[in-house]
Amino acid sequence: MKTNAKKALELHKKLKGKIVVKSKIRKLRRSEIQLIYTPGVAAVCEAIYRNPEQKYNLTTKWNNVAIVTDGTRILGLGNIGPYAALPVMEGKAVIYQEFGGVNAFPICLNTTKREEIVSTIKAIEPVFGAINLEDIESPKVLEISDELERLLPIPVFHDDRHGTSVVVLAALLNSLRLIKKDLSSLKIVIAGAGSAGYGISKLLCAAGCRYLVVVDSDGAIFKGRRKNMNKYKKEIANSTNPKKETGHLSDILRNSDVFIGVSGKKDLLTSKMIKEMNQDPIIFSLTNPDPEIKPDMAKGAGAKIVATGSYLYHNKVNNALVFPHLMRVILDTRAKKITTEMLIVTAKVIAKTLTDKELRYENILPDMFDKRIQRNLYRSLSNFQKRR
Amino acid sequence: MKTNAKKALELHKKLKGKIVVKSKIRKLRRSEIQLIYTPGVAAVCEAIYRNPEQKYNLTTKWNNVAIVTDGTRILGLGNIGPYAALPVMEGKAVIYQEFGGVNAFPICLNTTKREEIVSTIKAIEPVFGAINLEDIESPKVLEISDELERLLPIPVFHDDRHGTSVVVLAALLNSLRLIKKDLSSLKIVIAGAGSAGYGISKLLCAAGCRYLVVVDSDGAIFKGRRKNMNKYKKEIANSTNPKKETGHLSDILRNSDVFIGVSGKKDLLTSKMIKEMNQDPIIFSLTNPDPEIKPDMAKGAGAKIVATGSYLYHNKVNNALVFPHLMRVILDTRAKKITTEMLIVTAKVIAKTLTDKELRYENILPDMFDKRIQRNLYRSLSNFQKRR
Repeated sequence: MKTNAKKALELHKKLKGKIVVKSKIRKLRRSEIQLIYTPGVAAVCEAIYRNPEQKYNLTTKWNNVAIVTDGTRILGLGNIGPYAALPVMEGKAVIYQEFGGVNAFPICLNTTKREEIVSTIKAIEPVFGAINLEDIESPKVLEISDELERLLPIPVFHDDRHGTSVVVLAALLNSLRLIKKDLSSLKIVIAGAGSAGYGISKLLCAAGCRYLVVVDSDGAIFKGRRKNMNKYKKEIANSTNPKKETGHLSDILRNSDVFIGVSGKKDLLTSKMIKEMNQDPIIFSLTNPDPEIKPDMAKGAGAKIVATGSYLYHNKVNNALVFPHLMRVILDTRAKKITTEMLIVTAKVIAKTLTDKELRYENILPDMFDKRIQRNLYRSLSNFQKRR
Repeated sequence: MKTNAKKALELHKKLKGKIVVKSKIRKLRRSEIQLIYTPGVAAVCEAIYRNPEQKYNLTTKWNNVAIVTDGTRILGLGNIGPYAALPVMEGKAVIYQEFGGVNAFPICLNTTKREEIVSTIKAIEPVFGAINLEDIESPKVLEISDELERLLPIPVFHDDRHGTSVVVLAALLNSLRLIKKDLSSLKIVIAGAGSAGYGISKLLCAAGCRYLVVVDSDGAIFKGRRKNMNKYKKEIANSTNPKKETGHLSDILRNSDVFIGVSGKKDLLTSKMIKEMNQDPIIFSLTNPDPEIKPDMAKGAGAKIVATGSYLYHNKVNNALVFPHLMRVILDTRAKKITTEMLIVTAKVIAKTLTDKELRYENILPDMFDKRIQRNLYRSLSNFQKRR
């Protein structure tokens, strides 16, 4: 880990930042300048002015994504501000282009106020085909996302919510293929009720999960709980925890089948808790950079399938597997909203990309370099769009 | 011109927009992903959090420029909105990269309100090393530029003001080399009191011009004029028109030496007016796409040196000759403000780039592909910075 940090610093120092904005024309000729700039470009402006839909054919709007953060919840580092957030957003832009062919540009905001974040994004919308909200503290970001969805003519992708929920569902579906259990008969416990916890709980319910309990720092979230609630936790309370269980993580986990950790808390999960779960427990310990439990310890306690969000271990359940591919399809299909159905299709496609032969306890998800993901996804979501 | 428009449209349709955001790493390897993205990138974020100055070494902030417009004054097309403005901003981004190695990204705003433009730019500042204001209506843009200069820790380059004034001064200095006149003894008339007219009048005064009159649609601007004034025209009135001349363009032009047209008005200047100017008149008819007078007509009326802002004629006095090179130096020297001294040095360097042998009536400025410009400029402005 130390070496990794040192290597990362050295690479960034050498590169002086990771992205470059370039011309699509390889070697710009003199004769082309008057076409791409004044006076020729005036005809292009006029064409869009006359027919606004032409903006999708004559500019890069169709392919531009703003990666917007206010720096309040960067990785596991917390509120480190917009300047220190930039390396993550640039890294994300690189992955967007490399794996999805998406033109992503970082927008790190000098404000953490909800209304100012909303009005800034609304103001810069014309250049972009979609917005990617990133690493903004919860529940503020959920409010921002809801509000922007109402205000903007372009889709708002909230990676911590949408991306994470898709990769978790994909990983879960493949885990169930391996241990031959059925989603509708499982008890699933989610630790963490931020953006990720909220998104995962919504998507799992929509995908057929019937027995789900979300736990936060005040224990299980249940209908009627008073302490430390907000609009989104109320929504969780209304759609999960059918038996209105109360108590701490250790109580709720007893006799459950799946643990999904998006708590931001290192070492939250113990061997003892895993031992009290049902047979063949599935442990997704996804907090970055330090998971809720180290994979070795989880396996030692009897977990059959263990995953983390990190590149350091097997079974990376990381949204990088989702966002470049899903965004490619969102942009190409000109989707106006991110729908639950779209997310479920995406999760299923990612899961099914791994054949039965490839699927193993230590390999529950396809590799991010796997070219089949986008091909399969593109096929399914294009059909899906056409059916609407 | 028709063919040019058609060609431009075809090229834009083929390209689907002109810019691409790419990784600086050519072929991203698996081992590099964990350095540029989680978990490795966390060390880079922490380094910036501990020492904010590191943002200039570890991210692209040092090289990022936002090209910001609200679409209210696009080329000669007027208020065509942020969507139709995008092709110009993308073209500008291409030129920034091709000629200056600058990472420029278009920000077209969905608002035309001064306060909202200011707050949006303030909010997105963390990602950028400089702001380029572009094609925003005057005098609003001058107020915005002044306000941002007070508010932001990064320089605000206003191309219509700064860029245009530099290229005009450079062209004028070289014209005077040819016709052996002295700047301090000339009568110069500027038609247009928008951003360009304001910028040019300020810079020419600072460069040694003593007899300058600015004319707008209500005639000469003079100290004490009541009609159609604003803060910036008052500033013009206070620093120009020493004889408090009044009257229309044709009155003011009589016995003058230089006409500089930034009026936005096609065919404003007539042969008759040129004939009433002093010997060897200099005509810079810079409105785009259609100049105040066509070059042939101006020459027919006795003008010795004629320039336009267009690529269709000889003597292109276009800020594309300035902005990529000047921005390169602004970014590299980490200048906090754009100073008048910096602009004058830039104009002189651009002018002197042409040797006496190269300088001709039909060739008063170096070509934008001329690699000497940046080399010379870089040398002069770096020295200039060090002297401060």
